[in-house]
Amino acid sequence: MSLMSEDNHKIYFSPELSDRERACFETGIKLGALYHILCGIPISSKENIIKSIEKGIESAVSCQPYVKSVKINLDKEKIKGEKATQFDYDEITGKIIRAEIVIEFESIEIVAKVDWIEELQYPLMFIEKISDED
Amino acid sequence: MSLMSEDNHKIYFSPELSDRERACFETGIKLGALYHILCGIPISSKENIIKSIEKGIESAVSCQPYVKSVKINLDKEKIKGEKATQFDYDEITGKIIRAEIVIEFESIEIVAKVDWIEELQYPLMFIEKISDED
Amino acid sequence: MSLMSEDNHKIYFSPELSDRERACFETGIKLGALYHILCGIPISSKENIIKSIEKGIESAVSCQPYVKSVKINLDKEKIKGEKATQFDYDEITGKIIRAEIVIEFESIEIVAKVDWIEELQYPLMFIEKISDED
Amino acid sequence: MSLMSEDNHKIYFSPELSDRERACFETGIKLGALYHILCGIPISSKENIIKSIEKGIESAVSCQPYVKSVKINLDKEKIKGEKATQFDYDEITGKIIRAEIVIEFESIEIVAKVDWIEELQYPLMFIEKISDED
Repeated sequence: MSLMSEDNHKIYFSPELSDRERACFETGIKLGALYHILCGIPISSKENIIKSIEKGIESAVSCQPYVKSVKINLDKEKIKGEKATQFDYDEITGKIIRAEIVIEFESIEIVAKVDWIEELQYPLMFIEKISDED
Repeated sequence: MSLMSEDNHKIYFSPELSDRERACFETGIKLGALYHILCGIPISSKENIIKSIEKGIESAVSCQPYVKSVKINLDKEKIKGEKATQFDYDEITGKIIRAEIVIEFESIEIVAKVDWIEELQYPLMFIEKISDED
Repeated sequence: MSLMSEDNHKIYFSPELSDRERACFETGIKLGALYHILCGIPISSKENIIKSIEKGIESAVSCQPYVKSVKINLDKEKIKGEKATQFDYDEITGKIIRAEIVIEFESIEIVAKVDWIEELQYPLMFIEKISDED
Repeated sequence: MSLMSEDNHKIYFSPELSDRERACFETGIKLGALYHILCGIPISSKENIIKSIEKGIESAVSCQPYVKSVKINLDKEKIKGEKATQFDYDEITGKIIRAEIVIEFESIEIVAKVDWIEELQYPLMFIEKISDED
């Protein structure tokens, strides 16, 4: 049995944790990571620049455990900068980060999002759907 | 009622999510963030430098929602660099990151850790304890 | 002679580079790093939180080559969040980053800053003073 | 005259700074930023993942002032992880970061690199070529 098997990890976790709870934990890890990887990255409002950054970080996050899919959709409307001058560009902050991630742990599947909630003035991370395939 | 109240957030979450599951999600977010904030920060093996970086990032993480406490304990033994020359310093990677966080959501309290597991060659994030105060 | 000596590095640099030019390059590296390390770190407007984060990142940057001193002074006035509720906190962006760094390379000393310039709506990094001690 | 013009920036810089020195400073900023943006990003040794991350961060860095071109070439040989199991992936550190950037400021053009130097055990940033088109 490989050292990398799931069993070798379970010994570190509280035995009281259900698969659903573990899946929620793993989902949080990925959203927290995704958010902080994106923060501060330079960007402009050009379509090809945005797409390329989205795709690059999607690829990175998809390497992490239990990630079934990840879709980043930066809010083009809020990005300043047409690169009209040297200084005309923006940097990624919570206001423009929008992403959806699907996590699969054992038989549990979770759909979660990060989005800027205008009423709260806050980049909220939330679990939209949790389902058990069994 | 403030826009910032807990109720205004709950509408975004799946109604099927229990408080325990929500608490696990919030715990994951904080560990994922903590880890990616630390990665790449320059460091040396001097005690006062290490302590100062630990304390700075602890203060930052403690600002986030539901964080009751956070303790970062970078692995001094694995940090290279006594600053003997200009180039004698290290940067923070998963191998030296060790931290414990306590999250409180409603009546649920969670103790979670990130630690480098030598056998797995992996910086594992895990929930060590979950308890319900009710 | 140590592998870490200055001579072992010089072979990689263009021989046409003067000490002043090299010092300017090293100054840029440190400001670019400092800025991107700070971006996205959670923060609140509480004095002790701000001081602790400033001191932590100052300690980290001071480990890097040729750094004589570094002073970070985050703009408290622009930081939101008294932690009145769980969600009442902010994250560090270019608008609140202010820092001064002193770099010493051979006989050259440089004082440089990063500051948010309101007229330009831009976090400008600039060299304020360059002097030769010889 | 736009507020974003070059003249509006020059007032912040020491008048003693030459165009060559300014160009060196701008080059350092971009390499310092590039390095710290990359650090900690999850990655695997799969060709398409690597390419996508390289391209995403190249696009981001190209938005910054004075960047004529940027090429990131992560060291595939040093990246662990074929994603054979959930935990089989790596994170970007200084050991695998290799990049070349071309900066153009006024009539000055600079070619600079960051590379892991095995003998120094250090991710060295250096200016390989500086030329004046005039």
